[in-house]
Amino acid sequence: MPLEFWFEFASTYSYPAAMRIERAAAARDVAIVWRPFLLGPIFAAQGWTDSPFNLLPAKGRYMWRDLERRCASYGLPFRRPSRFPRSGVLAARVALAHEDEPWLPDYVRPVYRANFALDRDIADRSEIARLLEELGIAPAPVIARAEAAENKDRLRTRTKFAHKRGIFGAPTLLFGEEMFWGDDRIEDALDWATRHGG
Amino acid sequence: MPLEFWFEFASTYSYPAAMRIERAAAARDVAIVWRPFLLGPIFAAQGWTDSPFNLLPAKGRYMWRDLERRCASYGLPFRRPSRFPRSGVLAARVALAHEDEPWLPDYVRPVYRANFALDRDIADRSEIARLLEELGIAPAPVIARAEAAENKDRLRTRTKFAHKRGIFGAPTLLFGEEMFWGDDRIEDALDWATRHGG
Repeated sequence: MPLEFWFEFASTYSYPAAMRIERAAAARDVAIVWRPFLLGPIFAAQGWTDSPFNLLPAKGRYMWRDLERRCASYGLPFRRPSRFPRSGVLAARVALAHEDEPWLPDYVRPVYRANFALDRDIADRSEIARLLEELGIAPAPVIARAEAAENKDRLRTRTKFAHKRGIFGAPTLLFGEEMFWGDDRIEDALDWATRHGG
Repeated sequence: MPLEFWFEFASTYSYPAAMRIERAAAARDVAIVWRPFLLGPIFAAQGWTDSPFNLLPAKGRYMWRDLERRCASYGLPFRRPSRFPRSGVLAARVALAHEDEPWLPDYVRPVYRANFALDRDIADRSEIARLLEELGIAPAPVIARAEAAENKDRLRTRTKFAHKRGIFGAPTLLFGEEMFWGDDRIEDALDWATRHGG
């Protein structure tokens, strides 16, 4: 049974998590699967029209400082985005439409880096196209597949499943019935998976 | 400069934090000061009339499971309280009125244990009296001092200070300008204090 890594491209703590999960899992021989989803509809269902880090300014101020410290401790570059949150919808559609491609993790990481280290607009189609090109992937067919009605539907279904499963934030790690929330629970999740046959 | 440990008796993650902070700090030779305060007025100021773990059921379900796992990993007994949150006002008044007493940590820990391991009602004056008696402390004068108007005012002032300082949850650790939130940030806070002359 693999450890499921549920991530949202707009989510701040998903940035360090996405950057380090693959190496951390490989070091313990735990298989992971990447599960893109959207937090927006889950937040909206509880009446939030914005990120809780914007709705609660004290919590937001703390989060930015905490994230900066954590990225420094991981040796990850970090720059607070000039706009937050940036929509991760297109980025997630691309990820979902290609989640079985071997290049998926190599696509996910640069998208996070663009948002949280380079302050680039990942909601912009040309930015996603540029990132795909840098991977040697022709953007047009990938983006067309991502924006097909069937794939848009699939992302809605995926997000509904996440909501029903009890996911309320990102990143979230699932191992069977067990849930772990946050970059700071990656080690706990990997330990659990190791002890329970992951 | 000591590391300030800000705690609220109703706060779930303050339980493991309060149980382990003294030993963890001593192991690194970091001095700590205990800072009781109330989260209720801070939550109320942002429009919440209950714990976010009750207002957001999915988050609450996760928290109870996560807390159970964390307590198990620390070797701490845990039983989900039959009522949550329980008012920590009296317990905090007692702590604040006696925060310079050498017995303060020996009082704080049993209060948390009563709430989160023994499912006892820490809002009840007779429960606090019983816990004090078990420490060999005559309860009547301690509770009288705690409930004096001057001490009640001091707890209000303390809580206002916490709010102004940007504290939005518990436990919170302060070291100068630097803030760390959560039981899972104790090690980060101690590392920071050690590196910066704590």
